[in-house]
Amino acid sequence: MKSSANDCFIRALLRKPVERTPVWIMRQAGRYLPEYRRVREQAGSFMKLCTTPELACEVTLQPVERYRLDAAILFSDILTIPHAMGLGLEFVEGEGPHFSRPIRSAADIRHLPVPDPEIELPYVPESVRLIQRALQRKVPLIGFSGSPWTLATYMVEGGGSREFRKIKQLMYEQPQWLHQLLIKLADAVTCYLNAQIAAGVDAVMLFDTWGGVLATEEYEQFSLHYATQIVEKLHTRIGSSKIPTILFTKGGGQWLQAMSRSGYDALGLDWTTHMGRARSRVGDKVALQGNLDPVALYASPETIRSQVNNVLRQFGGGTGHVFNLGHGVLPDTDPAHVGAMIEAVHELSPACHGAAGIESAG
Amino acid sequence: MKSSANDCFIRALLRKPVERTPVWIMRQAGRYLPEYRRVREQAGSFMKLCTTPELACEVTLQPVERYRLDAAILFSDILTIPHAMGLGLEFVEGEGPHFSRPIRSAADIRHLPVPDPEIELPYVPESVRLIQRALQRKVPLIGFSGSPWTLATYMVEGGGSREFRKIKQLMYEQPQWLHQLLIKLADAVTCYLNAQIAAGVDAVMLFDTWGGVLATEEYEQFSLHYATQIVEKLHTRIGSSKIPTILFTKGGGQWLQAMSRSGYDALGLDWTTHMGRARSRVGDKVALQGNLDPVALYASPETIRSQVNNVLRQFGGGTGHVFNLGHGVLPDTDPAHVGAMIEAVHELSPACHGAAGIESAG
Repeated sequence: MKSSANDCFIRALLRKPVERTPVWIMRQAGRYLPEYRRVREQAGSFMKLCTTPELACEVTLQPVERYRLDAAILFSDILTIPHAMGLGLEFVEGEGPHFSRPIRSAADIRHLPVPDPEIELPYVPESVRLIQRALQRKVPLIGFSGSPWTLATYMVEGGGSREFRKIKQLMYEQPQWLHQLLIKLADAVTCYLNAQIAAGVDAVMLFDTWGGVLATEEYEQFSLHYATQIVEKLHTRIGSSKIPTILFTKGGGQWLQAMSRSGYDALGLDWTTHMGRARSRVGDKVALQGNLDPVALYASPETIRSQVNNVLRQFGGGTGHVFNLGHGVLPDTDPAHVGAMIEAVHELSPACHGAAGIESAG
Repeated sequence: MKSSANDCFIRALLRKPVERTPVWIMRQAGRYLPEYRRVREQAGSFMKLCTTPELACEVTLQPVERYRLDAAILFSDILTIPHAMGLGLEFVEGEGPHFSRPIRSAADIRHLPVPDPEIELPYVPESVRLIQRALQRKVPLIGFSGSPWTLATYMVEGGGSREFRKIKQLMYEQPQWLHQLLIKLADAVTCYLNAQIAAGVDAVMLFDTWGGVLATEEYEQFSLHYATQIVEKLHTRIGSSKIPTILFTKGGGQWLQAMSRSGYDALGLDWTTHMGRARSRVGDKVALQGNLDPVALYASPETIRSQVNNVLRQFGGGTGHVFNLGHGVLPDTDPAHVGAMIEAVHELSPACHGAAGIESAG
């Protein structure tokens, strides 16, 4: 694997010295960009964008061309795996994802196939290959998947949820069935991420969007346990280089210590967690990614700059920090404000590195 | 003040020895009860229920008559204060609260009156007096208010919110105006809770429903700071007895140590926080209240019993625990399942007390 011209994102994830804090944005290829909306309109549907490598490649590159970002992220959706499992994914405009054949019984779980990504999700590795060719190693490319727990919530609820009543009822009443489902999903996610690695991604991230709705013991048993199993089976060693792994549990701020022992190189933080206190809790076990409140991007560029500074100050200097939002960028965000955030990281973060940074990276 | 026949709720909040863990339920007087729905229908509107002391009294007593609960809670709404401030509160069926005159400018904040509860919210102290007469000191009565931050979110957003865009924009761009609003609200809440204490409530609780949407430093500055100012000015000493105070921040599990230093006697926990780990973090500074997931009440009575046992086991014995849900009971919960939870606390909790309990209470 040839490393990217700009590899400060990879180095920060592995806690190696960097000259400045790298920055990328969750959902950086998305609706807030007019150039994205144009391609999305032409494609006709969101899934068409995900399943057509040329289009996925085009929108993946858009934010990297517009901004000084330190990573690209594969344009895709976390629900491609359940889609390939045959649950019938549909996106209803303004209502989010919906499955026409959700999980309703133990038999549904038993009959669920574990898809071979090269055969049943061929558009994903193909998109990775296309994007890497187009990127020309300008910046690293991140691959990703939803976590088994998060995928299971959509598959059992049939779509988005507020109370998570169906999946929690399954968890309380038939935990062994839920474990069967999660075992299959962990297998599927492992194959899926390994296929992305084989196709050429430079880092992988597991999105556990709904881990934070669980009680602590349930989080450990039904979410973190499977995230841990996945990372153990990823092919992250390629020759002498390492594919860094990132685990993001939204609402997981109470569980960072357990998460830091799970084998991931970095943890994503949502905006509610204090960067500095998180760092002192996880020590030098993992890097941290985040965590400006996406709503802060509605503020003025001057305020955005001071909020960026605040996050950098909380982290406190040295390597092991990747700047990001604490959740995906909101669709009606002004692209100029996104730019203000990125420029502020470029301007303000070099002061956080240098002697102190190199020292703390050991 | 004459203490209630059953004062184990008060004793547990003050970390004095108890024979069993007391139990009550957030929103215990509510839509899941058929007798509540009957009165609500006759009243015609939710606000009619809140503002008519005889009706508020009737629904407050309903759960206490049906179940073996250790406390009653005043039937009211957290938005009575902004209503009395003139914002024009309306409840749209199925859509939640809405203000016809939300806060839109610094002038709106300047002109906002701080209501005198005896004059502008007379139905609240009157309800307290009626309820206490009807309760005949069978169990203690809890008074409550929304926190300044939580009230401000509704007043600035104009109703419920998902992203809290307007209030956060105010916070980022004009923090001094938001502080002016929160200072007024802290004054109003203090007067309101002191009026409830003067009318006879036995404990008070501050509901900070939306503190958890803030970043850590913002939570401390815009929510916890004002909660702390309020508790300092409450008239909680009545002769030799103490009115215990409870602070509940939904999503506040990361901030329990700061909360435990705020002067409240007890902290409410939502279901995501581990009772035992919370206890070891706050030590003997405060009692803890909670924290079964309200969704667990959709499970079978046997499962509910084992989940109750789990929360009791996590707390680990001794006084300083009040059993509750981690958030309000959901409207379509089966009343028999609520009963199963309460009975399980009665049956299982005596084993958590006795010698160990008395000892740890010092």
